[in-house]
Amino acid sequence: MIDLATRVWNHTWKIDPIVRSLLDTDFYKLLMCQSVRRSHPQTRVTFELINRSRHVPLARLVDEGELREQLDHVRSLRLSRGESTWLRGNTFYGKRQMFRPDFMEWLEGLQLPPYHLERQGDQYRLTFEGPWPEVMLWEIPALAIIMELRSRAVLKGMGRFALQILYARAMTRVWEKGERLRRIEGLRLADFGTRRRHGYLWQDWCVQAMIEALGEKFIGTSNCLIAKKRDLEAIGTNAHELPMVRAALAPDDEALRRAPYEVLADWQEEHEGNLRVILPDTYGTKGFLENAPDWLAEWTGIRIDSGDPVENAELALRWWQAHGQDPREKLLVFSDGLDVPEIEALHARFAGRVRLTFGWGTLLTNDFSGLVPGDALAPFSLVCKAVAAEGRPTVKLSDNPEKAMGPPEEVARYRRVFGVGEQIARAVRV
Amino acid sequence: MIDLATRVWNHTWKIDPIVRSLLDTDFYKLLMCQSVRRSHPQTRVTFELINRSRHVPLARLVDEGELREQLDHVRSLRLSRGESTWLRGNTFYGKRQMFRPDFMEWLEGLQLPPYHLERQGDQYRLTFEGPWPEVMLWEIPALAIIMELRSRAVLKGMGRFALQILYARAMTRVWEKGERLRRIEGLRLADFGTRRRHGYLWQDWCVQAMIEALGEKFIGTSNCLIAKKRDLEAIGTNAHELPMVRAALAPDDEALRRAPYEVLADWQEEHEGNLRVILPDTYGTKGFLENAPDWLAEWTGIRIDSGDPVENAELALRWWQAHGQDPREKLLVFSDGLDVPEIEALHARFAGRVRLTFGWGTLLTNDFSGLVPGDALAPFSLVCKAVAAEGRPTVKLSDNPEKAMGPPEEVARYRRVFGVGEQIARAVRV
Repeated sequence: MIDLATRVWNHTWKIDPIVRSLLDTDFYKLLMCQSVRRSHPQTRVTFELINRSRHVPLARLVDEGELREQLDHVRSLRLSRGESTWLRGNTFYGKRQMFRPDFMEWLEGLQLPPYHLERQGDQYRLTFEGPWPEVMLWEIPALAIIMELRSRAVLKGMGRFALQILYARAMTRVWEKGERLRRIEGLRLADFGTRRRHGYLWQDWCVQAMIEALGEKFIGTSNCLIAKKRDLEAIGTNAHELPMVRAALAPDDEALRRAPYEVLADWQEEHEGNLRVILPDTYGTKGFLENAPDWLAEWTGIRIDSGDPVENAELALRWWQAHGQDPREKLLVFSDGLDVPEIEALHARFAGRVRLTFGWGTLLTNDFSGLVPGDALAPFSLVCKAVAAEGRPTVKLSDNPEKAMGPPEEVARYRRVFGVGEQIARAVRV
Repeated sequence: MIDLATRVWNHTWKIDPIVRSLLDTDFYKLLMCQSVRRSHPQTRVTFELINRSRHVPLARLVDEGELREQLDHVRSLRLSRGESTWLRGNTFYGKRQMFRPDFMEWLEGLQLPPYHLERQGDQYRLTFEGPWPEVMLWEIPALAIIMELRSRAVLKGMGRFALQILYARAMTRVWEKGERLRRIEGLRLADFGTRRRHGYLWQDWCVQAMIEALGEKFIGTSNCLIAKKRDLEAIGTNAHELPMVRAALAPDDEALRRAPYEVLADWQEEHEGNLRVILPDTYGTKGFLENAPDWLAEWTGIRIDSGDPVENAELALRWWQAHGQDPREKLLVFSDGLDVPEIEALHARFAGRVRLTFGWGTLLTNDFSGLVPGDALAPFSLVCKAVAAEGRPTVKLSDNPEKAMGPPEEVARYRRVFGVGEQIARAVRV
C-alpha cells in the first residue's frame, strides 16, 4: 500500500534537506556559544570554509544553486518548541539547566546570519561574518551541507541496485567495525562525526548501529539532534575557536601568551567535572603544558586532537604526575582521525593508566572509501574555521604543521611567542 | 509519515504469506500439468516431502501450527483473473496460447487437494494424494513453505540490526556473484531457485539484482509469478516426475524400458523448438542415450541435472555427433547444484562447442551459508517427489546414487532393466 502523502511530499526537494534543525550541530558549539555570548557578544568574527584536500574540486562536484538552496534552508530554520524544551529540561553531563534562560531566549529567536559564497576556480569561497555567537553556529551545518552535497553528486549517477549494494557494503563495514570494538573491555566511545558525515540519515544509522553493537560502551554523540532523537548523551566541551579568537584579539605578545589560559579560566567559572577538558594543542601541546598555571592540573581531562597521539598522551600523563595528580583519575579524550586500529592500539596502551574516551568522527560516519569507482566517496579534509576577529587574522599552530593556519608572518610570531620548536608533519586524512 | 493501513495489515500474519499465488510455482509444473491432464487425468499419485539432509531437524525448527497455516493458505488460493489473463495471453518460448482453453478453464477452478501431515521424530511426514494433475502442483509450494518457515524460525531470534546486516551481507554476496558472472561473454542464465529459496521476497530481490547485473545475459526465471511481475521469460520444460510415474505404471520390464521414451514421444506431439529438452538422467544418462530412438537426436537440447556435469555433457555431445547432429546447434541446460565457479568452468569448457543455458537454483536464491551463528541458514537438500502411482512405488536412479530413491528391490530391478552399472556418489549439497 502506497502512502500517497509521503510520495507527493517526496516529489519535492524537501524530502531530505541536509540540515533539518538548528539542533543538527555539535553540542560543544552550543556550550561555547553560551560562553561566548556572555564574554564576547559583540565581537565580530569571520568564519571560512577551508578545503585542506585541494585535489577535491568542490566547485566542479557541487552545484552552486543546490548549495545556495541548502544554505538558505538553514537560514529558514528556527529552534522548535520541542527542541527548546529538550535543551532547557535535559540533563547534560549530570547537570540540569546547563543552558541559562537568557541564552535559551536568545537561541529561540536566532536566525543564522547571511553567508557569502563565490566560486574561485574549482573551489568555493564560503564565508560568514558577524557577531561571534551567531557566526560560530554556521560551522557544522556548512560542513555537513558541503559534505552531503558532494556525496549526493556522486550518488546521482548510480543505479538503484548499485546504490543498494553500496549501502549494504557500507553498513557491513560499519557493523564489522562495531563488532571489533565491542571486544575492547572498558571501551568508552562517542560519535564525533557530524561535520564530515556522508549524510544525516547515514550518521543516524551509524549511531543506531553503535548503540546496538556496543551497548554501554557507546556513551553518546556530539550531535544534539541525534542525541535528542535517540535518547543519548550529548557529548563535547570546547574547541580551538575559543583560544584562536581570544589570541587574535590580544593587543601584544604578553597578552597573546596569556590568552589560551584566560579562555580556560573563563570556562572554569562556568563548568565543572567532565566538562573541564583541556584542548592543549592550539599553539603546541608541549609549550602549553609547560607554561600552564597550576590550577589547570586540577581539571578532569585533556583532549588529544593533533600530532602523535601516543606522544601527546604520555606528555599529558607526565604533566599530571609532575603536578601531584593521579592520572588514573584523569581523562584522555582522543579525537583525531581515529579508526578501529588506532582505537585498539591507544586503548591497549593507556587503559588502566588513565580514563579514556574516544571521539570517533569521520571514519565512523563517512567511511565509503573503495566503494565506488574512482574512490569518489573517499573522505577528505574539510574544515570551517574562524579566520579573523575584529579584522585581525587568527592563527592555529596545532601539533601537526599540516593543520596550521594563518598568515605566515603571524604564524612565525605565534611560534616565537609560544616557543614552538620543530614539528613533525603528519598526513591529514580526514 | 506512517501508512496506518499498511501497519495495521502488517499486525496480522498475512503480512507475508509464504506462497501468495498459484502462479508462485515453476513454469515447467504448468507445462507438465497440461500434458498430464491430457494423458493421465485420473492417475492417482502420491507426492512426499523428502529431507535428504537428515541432520536438519525440520520438526524441531518449524512449528507444526505455522506449517499447517501456510499449507492451508495455499489451499485457499485460486488463480486470479489477471493471472489467468497472463497465462492465456502471454507468449512462452515464442509461442502464443501455450496453454489450451480447456486447461485454463480447469486451472481457473482449481483448488489444491488436501495434504497429510504428521510429525515423525525430528522430521515431518508430509504427503499429498490424489489425481496426478492436482497433486503435482503441491511440489513447489510445499518446498517453498518449508524452506521459508525454516528461515523465519532462525531469523526470529535476531535483533533489528543483526537482521539488517545479515541482508546487507547476503545482498553483497549475490551482487558480487552477478559481477563475476557478468564477465562471462555470451552467458545465458536463468533463475531456477524457487523451490529451495530463502523466501519469496528474497528470490524476487535476487532476480532483480540479476536483471541489473547481467542485462541480456539473464534470460528469465522458472517462477511464473516473478516472471509476470518483472516482465521476464518464464523458463522450464519437463522433469523427472514424468518418466518416474510412467515407469511405475509399466506392467512389465519391457514396458518399463520403453516408458522414458514414450514420455518424450508424448512431449514431442505438444512442443517444439527450445521446449524439446531431454532430461536423460532419471534412469542413467549413459543407457538412456545408448538406447534412445533416432528421432530424439533431432531434439533441441539436453538438461544435465546429476552426476559429473562435464562427463555427461561430453557424453551428450558425442551422442549428437554419432547421430549426425551438429552440437553447435544444440543446447545444454546445466541445472544441478550450480554456483559461480561451476558456471565459469562449464562455460569455459563448452562455450563455442554447444549452446549453453544455466539454470541457477539454490545458490542464487538461498546462499546464506556462514552468515549466522551455527550456520543455521545454510542451504540443505529438500525435495518433494512422486513416490507412488496407482499404489505402485516410483523409482529414480539418477546419475548420482545419493539422489536415487525407491524401494531397494525396485531400485535393483530398474538398474537391471536400464543396464545401469557402477555409479560414482557425489555429495548432494542443495
